[in-house]
Amino acid sequence: MGVRMLWPSPVNRVATLNLGGEPMPVDKPLNFVVLVGSLRRGSFNAAIARALPGLAPSDVAIVPLGSVGEFPLFNQDVEAQGFPSAVVAMGEAIAEADGVIIVTPEYNYSVPGVLKNAIDWLSRLLTKPFAGKPVAIQSASPGIFGGVRAQHHLRQTLVFLDARALAQPEVMIPQAHNKVDANTGELTDATTRDFIAKQLQAFAAFARR
Amino acid sequence: MGVRMLWPSPVNRVATLNLGGEPMPVDKPLNFVVLVGSLRRGSFNAAIARALPGLAPSDVAIVPLGSVGEFPLFNQDVEAQGFPSAVVAMGEAIAEADGVIIVTPEYNYSVPGVLKNAIDWLSRLLTKPFAGKPVAIQSASPGIFGGVRAQHHLRQTLVFLDARALAQPEVMIPQAHNKVDANTGELTDATTRDFIAKQLQAFAAFARR
Amino acid sequence: MGVRMLWPSPVNRVATLNLGGEPMPVDKPLNFVVLVGSLRRGSFNAAIARALPGLAPSDVAIVPLGSVGEFPLFNQDVEAQGFPSAVVAMGEAIAEADGVIIVTPEYNYSVPGVLKNAIDWLSRLLTKPFAGKPVAIQSASPGIFGGVRAQHHLRQTLVFLDARALAQPEVMIPQAHNKVDANTGELTDATTRDFIAKQLQAFAAFARR
Amino acid sequence: MGVRMLWPSPVNRVATLNLGGEPMPVDKPLNFVVLVGSLRRGSFNAAIARALPGLAPSDVAIVPLGSVGEFPLFNQDVEAQGFPSAVVAMGEAIAEADGVIIVTPEYNYSVPGVLKNAIDWLSRLLTKPFAGKPVAIQSASPGIFGGVRAQHHLRQTLVFLDARALAQPEVMIPQAHNKVDANTGELTDATTRDFIAKQLQAFAAFARR
Repeated sequence: MGVRMLWPSPVNRVATLNLGGEPMPVDKPLNFVVLVGSLRRGSFNAAIARALPGLAPSDVAIVPLGSVGEFPLFNQDVEAQGFPSAVVAMGEAIAEADGVIIVTPEYNYSVPGVLKNAIDWLSRLLTKPFAGKPVAIQSASPGIFGGVRAQHHLRQTLVFLDARALAQPEVMIPQAHNKVDANTGELTDATTRDFIAKQLQAFAAFARR
Repeated sequence: MGVRMLWPSPVNRVATLNLGGEPMPVDKPLNFVVLVGSLRRGSFNAAIARALPGLAPSDVAIVPLGSVGEFPLFNQDVEAQGFPSAVVAMGEAIAEADGVIIVTPEYNYSVPGVLKNAIDWLSRLLTKPFAGKPVAIQSASPGIFGGVRAQHHLRQTLVFLDARALAQPEVMIPQAHNKVDANTGELTDATTRDFIAKQLQAFAAFARR
Repeated sequence: MGVRMLWPSPVNRVATLNLGGEPMPVDKPLNFVVLVGSLRRGSFNAAIARALPGLAPSDVAIVPLGSVGEFPLFNQDVEAQGFPSAVVAMGEAIAEADGVIIVTPEYNYSVPGVLKNAIDWLSRLLTKPFAGKPVAIQSASPGIFGGVRAQHHLRQTLVFLDARALAQPEVMIPQAHNKVDANTGELTDATTRDFIAKQLQAFAAFARR
Repeated sequence: MGVRMLWPSPVNRVATLNLGGEPMPVDKPLNFVVLVGSLRRGSFNAAIARALPGLAPSDVAIVPLGSVGEFPLFNQDVEAQGFPSAVVAMGEAIAEADGVIIVTPEYNYSVPGVLKNAIDWLSRLLTKPFAGKPVAIQSASPGIFGGVRAQHHLRQTLVFLDARALAQPEVMIPQAHNKVDANTGELTDATTRDFIAKQLQAFAAFARR
C-alpha cells in the first residue's frame, strides 16, 4: 500500500506581531477539526484531510478528529446506557474547536452510512456540539461529480443541527485517483491544492464572524 | 417494556380458486421483504413493520429481513476480505423477493446512518440486489413531519441502485407514539392501518407490472 | 374576498437611548425585505408576509419587495437585451437590505416556478444581490407538512447564490387555512405568531453578526 | 446565429414484419414527447432534444411538446378563470403520449423556474397527465456537473405527480458547449449520442412494461 496515514504534527501557528512599534491588529488564531467520512485505509478523502494543515492560512491549526470507525451503530437503547467514550470525546473536540471541516466520499448518491452514523450519535449529545458551529464541506470521488450529491444531503442534516455551514466556495474533487499519489497518499494536484487553500481562507474569515 | 418483537408467522397466502368451474384468473402470489431502519427495541418503525403482514392483500406474504444491526460499519478494506455473512444473506433475501418495503425513522433530516450503512454494504454485492427491484417506503416519527425528509434522501439513493421505487401513495406517519400501543407494540391507529393497506395494495400492483 | 393586501406602513423603528446617563449600547436598526412566492390574491404566504412587520423586534423594519409576478419568464436571450426594470429594482432593494425573508408555498414538492423564476433572474445580475446576504425562510401550506420540502430545495439554491441562510429556528406553517382569517387576511393564530416572532428575533441576531 | 431550431419530421417508425411466414412478435410502437426546460434560442438542451428522434429505436417516435415560454406565470386566480390553452394542449399531448422526456438545464442548483412553472400548471389539470406516465430525464450544462442537481429536484416533483421516472441510465451532459456544434446546433459528440441512444432504448423497454 505505502499510504502514509500519519498527520503532520499540528504546528503552533500563532500570528506574529511586528515588535518595533504598535502591534498590528491580528486575527484570532483558529483551531479547526477534521472529520473524515471513509474508513478505507487508502481513502482519497483521508488523503485530502491530511493535506489540510499544510494548506491552511498561517494562523489556522487543523487537527484530525478520531475515526468514525470507533463509533458503534447508533441505537437509542445503547445511548440510554450511556454514550460511548469515542462519541463523548469527539463531541468535546468539536465543541472546543472554532470550526469543523467534513471531508467525505459519496456513497450511493448520499452521505456514507458510517459518517451519518457518527453524526447521528453526536447529535444526541446534550452539549449539541454542532449548534452554531462553523462547518465547511469537502468531498472527493473517483467519478466525475466529486461527491456533490452527498454534500447537499449533508447540508440538509446541518440545518437540523443548526450548524453554520459555509456556502461558497465549495470543494468537490472529481477523479480523485488522479490527484492523490497512490504511493505516498499525498494530495499532489496543484489546482486542487490551490482551491482547497482558497476555501480554507474563506472558512477562516467565515468562522471569525 | 412489554413490546413484543415477534413477527406473525408468514402465513401461506395463496389465492384460492373457485373449484366448481373454470379457474378464476388469479394474481401471482408475491413475497415482499421488510427492512427496518432503526435498532431501538421499542422502535415505532419496527412496530409498523410487524403490522405489515396483517395489512397486506391476501396473496402477498411479507417477511422481515435481518437486522441492519448485524452489519459492521462499511469499510472497503473489510469488503476486500469478503462480505460479512449478514450482508450476503440479506442480499440473497432481497434478490429472491418480489419487492422490498423499507420502514424507517428520520435522523437529522435524513436517512439513519445505520440504514444507510446497510444499503452501502448491499450496494457492493455483485448481484446488485436492488437493481430493478420494486421498493416501497414508509416512515414514522414522533414529530409532525413523519420522516418525509428521510424518504426523499432515500429515494435519491434508490436512483443510483436502479430500484423501481413506488411513487404514490406515500406513507408518512407523524406522531407515531400516538399510533402504536406502548405496551403491546401494536400499530393500533385505524386510519394509519387503512392507509398502509392501501399502499400495500398499490405496491402489489406495481410489483406485478 | 375581503382580503386586505395593504401593508402596514414601515414604521420608523429606531432603538431608543436612556437619556439620563451613558447611552446604552444599542443594536444597529435593521431593514429586512420580504419576497413572497405566490401570486394568488388570497395567498396564505402573502398573509404571513403582511404580518411580519408587526412581529419583528422593535429595531427591525420589514418591507415587501415587488411581486414576482412582474418578472417575465427567464430567457437568456431577453437578458442579453437588458434586464427588465422589475428585476433591476428588486435586485437593488435586496442589495440595500440587511436581510431577505422568503415566504413561500410549496408546489409539487418543490419551490414554486414563479419564485424560482424570480431567483433565476436575480441571480444573473452582476451585483449578485444574494451573495453574503442573510436569508430566512418561511413556508405555509394547507397540508400537514407546511412546505418543508420546498424549503430544502430553496436552501440548495441559496448555496449557489452564496447567501447566508439562517438554519434554526425554521418556520413551517401547516394547515395555514386554519391560521389566517379568511375575511381579513390576517394571521390570527397565536402560536404561529409567537413562533414567527422568535425566528425574526434569531434572524436579527444572525444578520448582525 | 445559424442554429436551426427545426425538428426533423417525426418519421413513421412502425416495426416491420417478415412477410413470408409467421409474423415476428413486434414491440408496440411508442410515441414519446419532449419537454425542454430552457427558452434560449441557442439552448444546448434544445439541441439535445432535437437530436432525440435520430437516436431513438426504430419503433419509437419522438416529437417536441410546445414551448414552456407560452405559459403565463402560474397564479391560482388565473387558473380559476380557466386554463390557458397552451397548458391544456400540452396536457393533452402528454396524456396521449407513451412517455415524456424532459431535457433541461440546471439554474441555481435546481430546476429552471420556467420549467417548474410549466409543471406547476400541468399539475393542476384534472386529467393529471403525469400520473403513471413514464418519464426520462436528460440535462446538459456548460459546467462539469451536467445538471445533476436539477435532476434530483425534478425527481422529487415527479414523486408528487406519481410519474414513473426511469432510474438508470441517467443522462447528464457536462461541458455541453463542446458537444453541440455552435453553427448548426447539432449534437455532434459521438459518446454523448451513444449514451443517449442507450437511455432511449432502456426508456422504451421501461415504457412498455
